[in-house]
Amino acid sequence: MSRVPKFLALTGGVGGAKLGVGLAEILPPEQLAFLVNTGDDFTHLGLHVSPDLDTLMYALSGESNQETGWGRRQESWRFIETLRELGGESWFNLGDRDLAVHVLRTERLRAGMSLLDVTRALNAALGTRHPIWPMSNEPVPTLVHTAEGPLAFQHYFVRDRCAPAVTGFEFQDVAQAAPPAELLAWLADPELTGIFICPSNPFVSIDPILAVPGVRAALTASAAPVIAVSPIVAGLAIKGPTAKMMAELNMPATALAVAEHYRDLLDCYVIDEQDQGLLEPLREAGFTAIAAPTIMLTLADKVRLAETVCDLALQHHAASM
Amino acid sequence: MSRVPKFLALTGGVGGAKLGVGLAEILPPEQLAFLVNTGDDFTHLGLHVSPDLDTLMYALSGESNQETGWGRRQESWRFIETLRELGGESWFNLGDRDLAVHVLRTERLRAGMSLLDVTRALNAALGTRHPIWPMSNEPVPTLVHTAEGPLAFQHYFVRDRCAPAVTGFEFQDVAQAAPPAELLAWLADPELTGIFICPSNPFVSIDPILAVPGVRAALTASAAPVIAVSPIVAGLAIKGPTAKMMAELNMPATALAVAEHYRDLLDCYVIDEQDQGLLEPLREAGFTAIAAPTIMLTLADKVRLAETVCDLALQHHAASM
Repeated sequence: MSRVPKFLALTGGVGGAKLGVGLAEILPPEQLAFLVNTGDDFTHLGLHVSPDLDTLMYALSGESNQETGWGRRQESWRFIETLRELGGESWFNLGDRDLAVHVLRTERLRAGMSLLDVTRALNAALGTRHPIWPMSNEPVPTLVHTAEGPLAFQHYFVRDRCAPAVTGFEFQDVAQAAPPAELLAWLADPELTGIFICPSNPFVSIDPILAVPGVRAALTASAAPVIAVSPIVAGLAIKGPTAKMMAELNMPATALAVAEHYRDLLDCYVIDEQDQGLLEPLREAGFTAIAAPTIMLTLADKVRLAETVCDLALQHHAASM
Repeated sequence: MSRVPKFLALTGGVGGAKLGVGLAEILPPEQLAFLVNTGDDFTHLGLHVSPDLDTLMYALSGESNQETGWGRRQESWRFIETLRELGGESWFNLGDRDLAVHVLRTERLRAGMSLLDVTRALNAALGTRHPIWPMSNEPVPTLVHTAEGPLAFQHYFVRDRCAPAVTGFEFQDVAQAAPPAELLAWLADPELTGIFICPSNPFVSIDPILAVPGVRAALTASAAPVIAVSPIVAGLAIKGPTAKMMAELNMPATALAVAEHYRDLLDCYVIDEQDQGLLEPLREAGFTAIAAPTIMLTLADKVRLAETVCDLALQHHAASM
């Protein structure tokens, strides 16, 4: 019987989804599953919005909006324009097509369906084929502590455009959350060969996933190597507030500092080729790291980075056997 | 002190709203209030939809969709098209602009605002000026009994296109409903000079209003004459299933049968000029009736019918003093 290596990818928003697209391109659904942050989820205008689940769904189904960098392609904005005219809250932009996802998700959750099952049904309707699991069915809303007081994540991220200086993060109700049974089975599978931490924000995309009771322990217990791709390249985040947050948290905004953040998990680390100079400091700090092209503009870029992390996982896994 | 006559109009959907536009054109907000059927209201896709309240709001604000005959003008359908693609329930067409009203209403109701206050806020945002009162803040969903079993109103009306033969109607939970205090004050006002029953469906637009505890008694107790405009012209309903329902209920589909239906309320009745031949039978049956042009295609038609019913009210009210 031939070996069929399996992989798991932890992902948050747009950056993580790019690597997700590359991985999905080279691995069939039996070999690749996604564990997705839902700490950004919130109820807005009475609708349950799951930004990271949708970002991955749209990316994998070819429905991402390339112009905006978020949301769905071929989008229109009649609903939100009208809502604004009516005096409704319009700081969170909801496209007319995107809205159908939120309305359907909300209706199904209210009818008692789990977030995982809703996610499965939505992805099936859009034709994605890989398992996509929310980190938990229970809400674990991220609270961003800032110099101006605590803010719900989307108030910080969208409404206030990440302007307030962050001082810390709180994953509310996380003690009551549980990871999906599917995840635990996948992690316990002897064929599991690699666990990828996508280049997502460590604090508000990956840490919420790791905070769900049992997840960190299961990742650590797995024989598969954990491989992270740095979201910081040359001191900057490709997208989003990661670098700004690191500065505010008095961390150097470097790929090395991200590795330190993940220290107890990492088996191998991928930094960008522009950060070659960090390979030696990483080695000195005890990390196994390589430098590779990590900027993903084209599908070819995404596939190449996916191949890089898969190869690394196969090598590490073989070496540890 | 000069007399400022006040009027109340009971209305349901599109036909009633046409007369409403005519009345609003000739009477200022201090002199005209609307009492609107909410028996058609339903929760769809988790959203509270109030078709008759919206029909009147769009009509009075010049936002009616003339092409479809319902909904909002300059509408688009990206949301519902996407919902259909995702496998959601799409038999009830929700336009992208219209949806903003439903989302906002639902959010505010869920936050504890009354339907009356939500209606007021939405109408204020759209610039209508006349008081518009839902028949009650409490839901009173109309159940349509049919040969095929009971159907929720919108399932009968929209999904099943009024195809099942009706056998009766039930206004669910109406015993727990109460009319707005504003209505009772308006009805008790000595300046109240006319109560108009607009040319709406008697069974599913007007009867639900009359079924709210206290409404029928307050209308009867008022010194102001009750004047109805027949929704049946030459044996046909201008719009909607009124004539079909009458046939199914073994009533002749005539303006006379509608008068009989309202017998204990009517002080005066307006039939269409095409039904002149019914004036004598109406008189013989004990009704005070006139024939007038009631088909409202243009704004001038609406204003003319509004003037007709106001004149009638003023005459009857003066005669009874």
